[in-house]
Amino acid sequence: MRQVTVRPENAHQTELLRLLRDEGPVSRAELGEAVHLSRSKLAVELDRLTEIGLVDSRGLAASRGGRRSGIVGLASGLRFLGIDIGATSVDVAVTDARMVVLEQLSEPIDVRHGPDAVLAVVLELVGKIRSGGNAVDVHGAGVGVPGPVSFRDGVPVAPPIMPGWNQFPVRSVLSQHLDCPVVVDNDVNIMALGEMHAGLARSVDDLLFVKVGTGVGCGIVVDGQVYRGASGSAGDIGHIRIDDEGPVCSCGNVGCLEAHFSGAALARDATEAARAGRSDWLADRLAAAGSLTSADVAVAAANGDQASVELVRDGGRRLGLLLAGLVSFFNPGMVVLGGGVAAGLGHPLLAELRSVVYRRSLPLATGNLPIVLSELGAQAGVIGAARMASDSVLSHD
Amino acid sequence: MRQVTVRPENAHQTELLRLLRDEGPVSRAELGEAVHLSRSKLAVELDRLTEIGLVDSRGLAASRGGRRSGIVGLASGLRFLGIDIGATSVDVAVTDARMVVLEQLSEPIDVRHGPDAVLAVVLELVGKIRSGGNAVDVHGAGVGVPGPVSFRDGVPVAPPIMPGWNQFPVRSVLSQHLDCPVVVDNDVNIMALGEMHAGLARSVDDLLFVKVGTGVGCGIVVDGQVYRGASGSAGDIGHIRIDDEGPVCSCGNVGCLEAHFSGAALARDATEAARAGRSDWLADRLAAAGSLTSADVAVAAANGDQASVELVRDGGRRLGLLLAGLVSFFNPGMVVLGGGVAAGLGHPLLAELRSVVYRRSLPLATGNLPIVLSELGAQAGVIGAARMASDSVLSHD
Repeated sequence: MRQVTVRPENAHQTELLRLLRDEGPVSRAELGEAVHLSRSKLAVELDRLTEIGLVDSRGLAASRGGRRSGIVGLASGLRFLGIDIGATSVDVAVTDARMVVLEQLSEPIDVRHGPDAVLAVVLELVGKIRSGGNAVDVHGAGVGVPGPVSFRDGVPVAPPIMPGWNQFPVRSVLSQHLDCPVVVDNDVNIMALGEMHAGLARSVDDLLFVKVGTGVGCGIVVDGQVYRGASGSAGDIGHIRIDDEGPVCSCGNVGCLEAHFSGAALARDATEAARAGRSDWLADRLAAAGSLTSADVAVAAANGDQASVELVRDGGRRLGLLLAGLVSFFNPGMVVLGGGVAAGLGHPLLAELRSVVYRRSLPLATGNLPIVLSELGAQAGVIGAARMASDSVLSHD
Repeated sequence: MRQVTVRPENAHQTELLRLLRDEGPVSRAELGEAVHLSRSKLAVELDRLTEIGLVDSRGLAASRGGRRSGIVGLASGLRFLGIDIGATSVDVAVTDARMVVLEQLSEPIDVRHGPDAVLAVVLELVGKIRSGGNAVDVHGAGVGVPGPVSFRDGVPVAPPIMPGWNQFPVRSVLSQHLDCPVVVDNDVNIMALGEMHAGLARSVDDLLFVKVGTGVGCGIVVDGQVYRGASGSAGDIGHIRIDDEGPVCSCGNVGCLEAHFSGAALARDATEAARAGRSDWLADRLAAAGSLTSADVAVAAANGDQASVELVRDGGRRLGLLLAGLVSFFNPGMVVLGGGVAAGLGHPLLAELRSVVYRRSLPLATGNLPIVLSELGAQAGVIGAARMASDSVLSHD
């Protein structure tokens, strides 16, 4: 893999590259209008970007009356890697310069096996993609991990479900092996960015992305940028206390959102319902499989199992109550619901959330607020990771 | 009053002006390093800014080994107006270019008297300041009002406690009378900006400013900018439902934070305590004055009246529980507590808030989180308003 170290050299070049990434190939005339550059100044910057291999010419635009203007786009050979390390699997994708996924590979592996084992799988998947001819010129790679990250240092910080990863130099290790710049962030942040780049939130500046998986988290986008907060923990809503009582959380406290509603909580409550004789459906499934997951609850609820329907409704109500307050506080332009458990539960969960938020939040904040299920699914993470890498690489500072 | 319409002409000039505003007069050498401009390019921009009257020369800096570098600062004659329209009074101040208050006048008037009466008072106060010799060259004015505002249009939008103000063209009316550019925003947003510019939050990028007055609101600062949300209602936390029961709120709903804890709620609860015989102190005060206010609760609590101590503690706990969740979600660099009622209640309220937030929020979010009482008091609003005007005026777009 050949390292591509070229970067834009000034603010105008950065602006031009981001426009081409987000809007696609456009004519020089349109580009000049969009960035307020004179024709000659624009030509200088585009020539330079072409020279360093970041921009391509694509023929001539249709005439707008005068001379036909040349069309330019990001170099068609530019490639980014999006790496999404989940609790139980790794996804690796290669994208073009506009973050369109060209190839995506996935491999199950438990993140608790530690950084050496997991990153070996990552590199193996990258190797497979490379040997197929993709990802030869990689311009940058983005990585999401299921825990808190120091974005500046590119290391996980005391991640609860990632034993062995604390302070592990993910960025520098991968950067060395991949021979390109690497950025590392929390998985929920990169999913939020993916939704903003390629999902239903494409035209939204201020976004909440709520992920319901084994745990619960929230990605916050402010003015098109991931908002991380003063110490990088912004959006960590899973341990907000929503109740003075309730089951003990994995963090040791009582009343956390995640202990009431999450993939883990659903599995626990379903098992309890099966054992207490409140659901024949779940009891049969438990007897057959030996254990229950949130996916069983989703199937049971879809089949009309009353106990499961109530678990989903109750969970949606609790998440909705918290979200109602956050919507009043943050006044987002959209709320996107994603993550494996949310995808499995689907519309019944969405309906409950909508009902609570629209009833409880300020009318000013909900008057024009779409609350939607992610349509990107498992691609949100890899697209967001690639996009985060491109934000970093297509920048002059 | 002479209108000053000059503005910076490009991004470099904007950056130079903001540096001079926020850092004060500095040498050309330091300025060149801070903005990454060559000496000749810097000289061109500074000459132009001097020519249009935005920048002054201030003599020579101490030698750093070579030729002594000239010191430049924002023109000493630049003036901004900060106008803080409260529920029951109006504050008008004139500031220099660094938002230092040169003169501040206040006049009691009920905002419910409507825009004609209230803006007449504003103009009268400006007239007084002007006749004293200040505010001759006004470069811009900022206005805060106690209700929701369309920042873009410069008009209040359905403000609950401002009858007659809905859609009233505050910006264009004042702009015409003051003969300068005007910006209008919600009072909590301008107070948050004031705290960031001149208060304890000076070095903080991401800030929550919690105002407890007759109502309760929150100003949100992200990366040094006021965050208003998708429809301008961000930070409107007074009507977040914190309970399924409780007193009916002014908004008609049940369980709102503001109905449980605010100046109005304290006055109501104190009256109830006095009438129910739970506080001799409050009963005496009620008999003497005919009614009770939150200020009475503050004095009673300071004098050891148990019922009042409990009202403050209970209110602080309720606000603290909500704030604990918002701190986990937003991960601010500082929380500043302000507004008239908070100032009156002071440290007992602060202590209760701190106790709840530090106990309940995520350790990552509170590890390094100061929660402080505003030291600017009534100046936060006018300073923030002037600063908001300067943000708008000292900008090339």
